[in-house]
Amino acid sequence: MKAGVIGATGYAGAELVRLLSGHSRVDDLILSSVSFEGGKIEEVYPNFFGLISRPLVKAEAVVNEADVVFSALPHGVGEQFAKICVDKETPFVDLSADFRFGEDEAAFKKWYGKDYVYPELRKYSIYGLPELNRKRIREQGTGNREQRGAVIIGNPGCYPTGASLGCFPALAKGLAAGTVIIDAASGISGGGREPSRQFHYPECADSIAPYKIGAHRHTPEIARNFAAMASMGGRDSPPVVFTPHLVPMNRGILSTIYIPLAEKAAENNEEQISKFHSIYADFYKDEPFVRVLPPGLIASTNRVRGSNYCDISIHTDHSGSVLIVVSAIDNMVKGAAGQAIQNMNLIFGFEEKTGLESIPALF
Amino acid sequence: MKAGVIGATGYAGAELVRLLSGHSRVDDLILSSVSFEGGKIEEVYPNFFGLISRPLVKAEAVVNEADVVFSALPHGVGEQFAKICVDKETPFVDLSADFRFGEDEAAFKKWYGKDYVYPELRKYSIYGLPELNRKRIREQGTGNREQRGAVIIGNPGCYPTGASLGCFPALAKGLAAGTVIIDAASGISGGGREPSRQFHYPECADSIAPYKIGAHRHTPEIARNFAAMASMGGRDSPPVVFTPHLVPMNRGILSTIYIPLAEKAAENNEEQISKFHSIYADFYKDEPFVRVLPPGLIASTNRVRGSNYCDISIHTDHSGSVLIVVSAIDNMVKGAAGQAIQNMNLIFGFEEKTGLESIPALF
Amino acid sequence: MKAGVIGATGYAGAELVRLLSGHSRVDDLILSSVSFEGGKIEEVYPNFFGLISRPLVKAEAVVNEADVVFSALPHGVGEQFAKICVDKETPFVDLSADFRFGEDEAAFKKWYGKDYVYPELRKYSIYGLPELNRKRIREQGTGNREQRGAVIIGNPGCYPTGASLGCFPALAKGLAAGTVIIDAASGISGGGREPSRQFHYPECADSIAPYKIGAHRHTPEIARNFAAMASMGGRDSPPVVFTPHLVPMNRGILSTIYIPLAEKAAENNEEQISKFHSIYADFYKDEPFVRVLPPGLIASTNRVRGSNYCDISIHTDHSGSVLIVVSAIDNMVKGAAGQAIQNMNLIFGFEEKTGLESIPALF
Amino acid sequence: MKAGVIGATGYAGAELVRLLSGHSRVDDLILSSVSFEGGKIEEVYPNFFGLISRPLVKAEAVVNEADVVFSALPHGVGEQFAKICVDKETPFVDLSADFRFGEDEAAFKKWYGKDYVYPELRKYSIYGLPELNRKRIREQGTGNREQRGAVIIGNPGCYPTGASLGCFPALAKGLAAGTVIIDAASGISGGGREPSRQFHYPECADSIAPYKIGAHRHTPEIARNFAAMASMGGRDSPPVVFTPHLVPMNRGILSTIYIPLAEKAAENNEEQISKFHSIYADFYKDEPFVRVLPPGLIASTNRVRGSNYCDISIHTDHSGSVLIVVSAIDNMVKGAAGQAIQNMNLIFGFEEKTGLESIPALF
Repeated sequence: MKAGVIGATGYAGAELVRLLSGHSRVDDLILSSVSFEGGKIEEVYPNFFGLISRPLVKAEAVVNEADVVFSALPHGVGEQFAKICVDKETPFVDLSADFRFGEDEAAFKKWYGKDYVYPELRKYSIYGLPELNRKRIREQGTGNREQRGAVIIGNPGCYPTGASLGCFPALAKGLAAGTVIIDAASGISGGGREPSRQFHYPECADSIAPYKIGAHRHTPEIARNFAAMASMGGRDSPPVVFTPHLVPMNRGILSTIYIPLAEKAAENNEEQISKFHSIYADFYKDEPFVRVLPPGLIASTNRVRGSNYCDISIHTDHSGSVLIVVSAIDNMVKGAAGQAIQNMNLIFGFEEKTGLESIPALF
Repeated sequence: MKAGVIGATGYAGAELVRLLSGHSRVDDLILSSVSFEGGKIEEVYPNFFGLISRPLVKAEAVVNEADVVFSALPHGVGEQFAKICVDKETPFVDLSADFRFGEDEAAFKKWYGKDYVYPELRKYSIYGLPELNRKRIREQGTGNREQRGAVIIGNPGCYPTGASLGCFPALAKGLAAGTVIIDAASGISGGGREPSRQFHYPECADSIAPYKIGAHRHTPEIARNFAAMASMGGRDSPPVVFTPHLVPMNRGILSTIYIPLAEKAAENNEEQISKFHSIYADFYKDEPFVRVLPPGLIASTNRVRGSNYCDISIHTDHSGSVLIVVSAIDNMVKGAAGQAIQNMNLIFGFEEKTGLESIPALF
Repeated sequence: MKAGVIGATGYAGAELVRLLSGHSRVDDLILSSVSFEGGKIEEVYPNFFGLISRPLVKAEAVVNEADVVFSALPHGVGEQFAKICVDKETPFVDLSADFRFGEDEAAFKKWYGKDYVYPELRKYSIYGLPELNRKRIREQGTGNREQRGAVIIGNPGCYPTGASLGCFPALAKGLAAGTVIIDAASGISGGGREPSRQFHYPECADSIAPYKIGAHRHTPEIARNFAAMASMGGRDSPPVVFTPHLVPMNRGILSTIYIPLAEKAAENNEEQISKFHSIYADFYKDEPFVRVLPPGLIASTNRVRGSNYCDISIHTDHSGSVLIVVSAIDNMVKGAAGQAIQNMNLIFGFEEKTGLESIPALF
Repeated sequence: MKAGVIGATGYAGAELVRLLSGHSRVDDLILSSVSFEGGKIEEVYPNFFGLISRPLVKAEAVVNEADVVFSALPHGVGEQFAKICVDKETPFVDLSADFRFGEDEAAFKKWYGKDYVYPELRKYSIYGLPELNRKRIREQGTGNREQRGAVIIGNPGCYPTGASLGCFPALAKGLAAGTVIIDAASGISGGGREPSRQFHYPECADSIAPYKIGAHRHTPEIARNFAAMASMGGRDSPPVVFTPHLVPMNRGILSTIYIPLAEKAAENNEEQISKFHSIYADFYKDEPFVRVLPPGLIASTNRVRGSNYCDISIHTDHSGSVLIVVSAIDNMVKGAAGQAIQNMNLIFGFEEKTGLESIPALF
C-alpha cells in the first residue's frame, strides 16, 4: 500500500512519515510540501538522513497516487484535496480541524473564522476518536478497497483527545454533577515548527504559563465530545472549562480533570477511588491504547513518550467530593500522527495496533 | 545587625544566605548546619566561593549570637531554638510548618504527624503572610529591640502563598459561589536539596505529572488562609481542592485558580474581566510585592524569576461563569526566603522592600 | 528465542528490555534484578505497564533458561554468570567494563580497582564494537546454536563508541599528526538510575560542566581502540586526551574531536573537507549504523535520538591545520543497549539491523 | 547620573536596563528601540511591569541626553551614535563588534563584511576587557566629566571573554607549546531575542550540537586577545582553534581549553596542577571578578549564574602533557551587560563592583 502525506514537513507531518515508515502494511510513501517542494524530506529533517529520502512533490500528486492520504495542512486549506479523495474513494485522514465539527459549520466558523469550502463533504466525514467512533470508522471502510465508500476522518485535536478519554466513562455513567474543569499542559512541539517569540527557547524554557485562557479553539471540540459521550448514557453534558498551559518539555499532554460528584460514592477515599477505578478499568477493558493505571499510580507524560497510549489515573480530592482524573498522552502520537494511523488501520481492517507497537521510553 | 540562619545548607537556607548578604541592614551573618558543621558555606555551595565564606557552626551558637534568627530546618525539629529565642526576645522566623497552624495543634498533628513540643510558644507566633497579617507582624516587633516583645513568624508554605494571594480579593469580596480549585505547578527546587528518584534528572526532565493528589500538606494551610480571608469580608470560606504538579524547571510556582461565580458580573467577558481586574488592582494597590497585571497579560513564572513579586492575572472561562485567576511566584523567594526577609523587615521597622529590590530576570 | 537480561532495572537494562520486546527474533524474555526480585518490571518502570509484565527473578534463573544473556550489572560482579554461560555455550553480552580489556588485566585493575575473577574467560571474549570486530564476532557465533562455541562480548562504553567511530578512518589512514583531543558531552541518563547530588535536577539543569577531567575510566578504553584502529593501517596510535561534560538533556553523546594534521590536504577548507569526507564516507560505506553526513551538515544528538545510528560530520578549523570530526550517538542505544543487540544479531547470524530499525525522532 | 541604552529591547539591552536599574550611581535611564519606539520597556518585557516603565524613544534622544551611552545595536549600524558621543565627549560603550578590532579594519571587514563608517573613531576606542586594559580604560575616563576626553569602549564578545580570561596567565607566562583548542558551549540566550528555527524550543531542547565550526566571528577577536596577552610576556601567540556549541540552557558560557605544554612541570599531576593553580591564582589575585577555584573544584555555568564573575579551574590530562583550563561566565553579564557596566565604572572612577554585587544563585 502506498500512503501519502500532504504537508509532510510540519511536525505532525514528519511524525506521520516516521511512523508510517515502520508500518508493516505500508510499502511506499509519497510526500508533499509547499515550502520545500522539489527537495527531499531528509534535507528538511536530517534525522531522516539516509533512511527516508523521499522527494517532496505537489499535493496533487499525492492525492492522485496514494491509497490513503493524510493531510497535515493548516486549518481551512485542505478541503480541495479531500474533495478529490472523496471522488476517488481514497480514504482521507485530516489532522486539521476542518472535519472535526461535522455538520456544525457554525461552530467551525465561530472558532476558526472560516466557512466550509465544500460543505457536502461532511456526509463522508467521521470524527476520528476510535474509542468513541470505532464502529462507524471501521464500517465505512471495509478493508476492501472496491467495496469501501468514501471516507474522511476528522482526526481529533491533541487536547480534546486527552480530555475526552479522561472523561468518557464519567460522562457515560453520569458521574459529573456540575462544571468539569480541564487543566491541561502541553509540550512545546504542540506549537508547531514555525519559529515565534512564544516558542523561542529563552522565552519558554524553565517556566510555565497558561495561554488562551477561556478562548482556546479546542474548547468547542471538547464540548462536542462531551455531549456525544454523555448521550451514550442518555445524559446531558455538563459545562466544560478548559485551560491549556505551556510547559518546557518537547512532547506530551497532561490533563488534570476535576469532576464534581453528586454524592460521595463510599465511606472513605480509598474505597471511592477503588470504585471509580473499577468503572474506568471496565469501561476501557478492550481498548488497545487506553491504560487505566492501578490506584496509587499517577499518569505522567514521560510514561507514554513516543507511544500511542493514553494513560489514565483515578483520584479524589481530600474531601471526596471531586473526582480527579489525570490523563497523559504523547501529543505527537495519540494526539496527532499515531491516532491518524490508528484510524487508517480501522478503515483498512488492519489490526488496530499495526505500526503503533512502540513501547513508551521513560526518556 | 547580625542575622542568623539555622539549617543554612538546604536550598531555602542557602537562598536566605544569598539574599541576606545583599541586605543593607544586615552587617553580619552566622550560619549553622548539622550536615556540614565545621565546614564553610562556600564549600557546600561553590557559587558562594570567595564571597560568603562563613563557617558553619552549631544552631546553639546562632540563637545565642544573632539579632534575628531564620530557621530553615525540617518540620518538627526547631522548636527548641524558637523557645530560646522567645526567652531572649530574639525574633524567630521559621520556614518550616511548625508555627503555621497557631493554636490548632490538631490540624498540625493530623497532617504532619507530630505533637507541638512547646505548645505555649504559639501565643507569640504569627502566620507570616504580610498581605494578610502585616499590622500584627509590624506591631509585635516595634523596630526597637528593647521594647519589642517575643515574636515568632510561621513563614508560609510556597503553594499557600501563591494560592492565597491569588484568592484574597475574591474571598474578601465574597465572589466565590462554590468549590475553589487550585491547580498548581512547582519547579523542582521545591523538593529540596536531598537527592531522590522523584527529582533525579532523567525521571523528571521533559515531563509533567501531578503528585500527592488530594493529600498534599499545604491543603489545610490554604484552607486556613481562605477562612481568614473570607472572614475579613464577613463571609464563610468555600471548599478548596488543591492539586500540585511537578514541572521541569528550577524555580517558580504557578497557580491556576478556578472560582465559580454566583452570577455573571457583566454582559460580556471583557467587561467582566475588567470589573474583576479593578477589584483586584484596588485591593492590592498599596502592596509592594503584588503586581496585578493589566487585562491581556497572563502571569508566568519567568516574569517573577529571582524576585519577591507575586504576579496575578485575571480571566474568565468562555461562558463567563468561572473567574480564573493565575498567580506566579518564585518559590524560593516570595515562597520562602524572600518572604522571610519581608517579615524581618516588618518586625524591625525597615522599609519593606529592603534587600528584596531584585528586578525579575526573564531568564 | 528466549533472551535474558541480568540487572534489568537499571537504565541500560530497561532499555534492553524495551528494545528486545520489539525484536522479531526474540519470543520471550527472562529478567533479573537484585533490588526488585520478586516484583515485576512494569512496577519499576510504569511506562511498561500492561506491556511488559515479566516477573523479576534471580540471575541464576536467567543464565539457566536464556538462549542469550545480556548483563547490565555494575563492573566486577557479573563474571560468575559469564562463567556459567561459557560452560553452557550461551552467548553472554556484558555491558559492564569487565570484558572490555581482554587479556590486559593490569589496565582493568588500574582504572577499575579490581582483579579479574576468572581471567581465563578472556579467551572467549571479544570487544564488541561491530565496526571494528564484526568478523570475529560473527565467526565466533555461527548462527547455529549447536556449532557455536562460547562467546562473551565486552560491550563498549558509551563515550568510547562515539569517540572511536569518530576517529576510526582518520586513524586507519594515519591522518593524525599529534595528540587527538576528544571533547565529549553526555546526557544525564549516562549517570544511571541511582539518585545522587550530581544528577539531582536543580543541580544539573540549565547548566554545563565537565567532570573527571583527565581521570575518566573510558580513557584507557578509547586508547586501546585507537591502537587497534591505527594498527589496521600499520601505524602507531597518537596520544589521546578525553574530557567528558554533563549537559542538561536526557539522552545522547556528542564528541567533538580535534585531529592535528601533518599537512594541509588541499588549497582551501572546502576542498579539504570534501577530501576527508570522501575518506570517511568510503570507509563507512557498508556500515549499517554509521551515517557520514554530507559537508554542510553538523552532527547533533537530537538527530540520532532513540536510534542505533552514529552520525559523523567532517570539518576543519579556520586555518585548515586541524581536522574536526563531530560524532553523535544515543548513549542508551548505540552507546549501550542497541549495540548489545547489534552484537547479538551478529552472533546469531540475524540481519544486523533486526530490532534496531527505529528511525530517529527529532524530539 | 543618567544612563542611556540604545537598542534596549534586545536581550543584552534588557539585561543592561535591569542591571543599571540597581546601580547606585545611576539616577535615571533613557532607552531607545527601533522596533518598539513609542512604547514602554515594560510592555516588551512584562517582567519589568510596574518597576521599569521608561518610554522607548529615538536613539538620537538617548545620545543627546545621557551622561553615558550603551549601545546594544547589531553590528555595523551604531557608529553614527558613537560619532555624536565622541563629539560631545559622552562615553560610549558599544556591545557590538564595531569597536573590538581597533585600527584593524581589514579584520573587521573580513569577518563582518562591512567597512568602518567613521574609521577615525578608533583613535578613541579601547577594547573593553578590564583585566587586559583596565589602566587605559580608567585613564581615558577620569571620573570627572569636564576633564575626560572622548572614549569608546568596544565591549568584548561573550566567547572571547571566557576564552581570553581562561588563557591570559598561560599566555603571559608562555606556557603554551602549540595550538590552543577552545571548545566552548553557550546557553541559547546568546542567539538573541529574534525567533529562528535554530533557537525554536523543540529544535534545540534536550540536545547538543556545535555550530559555525571553523568559521565563528569570535575567532579573530580571540586571536587578537591572545596576541596582546602573549606579548605582555614578550612572547608570540600560539595558533587558536575555537568551536562553539549550543546547549539547552538559558544562560552561561563554558570554555574547556586545551593548552599543550612544552614539558611536564612536575612529577605528578597533583603537583603540576598545584603549580599551575598558583600561577593563575597569583596572576588574578587582585581581580574583582575572576575567581580561580581551588584544585578539586571544576568551573560550571550554574555557579556564576546572574553574576559578573568568571570562574576558572585548572586541570591536566592524564599524561600531564596538556594543561586543561575550564572557564565559566554568564554570557549575559560578564559576557555582555555586566562587563559593559564594569567598563562604565572604570571610566567614571566608580568602585569597580558597583551595581555588579550580585552573588551567583545555583539556580
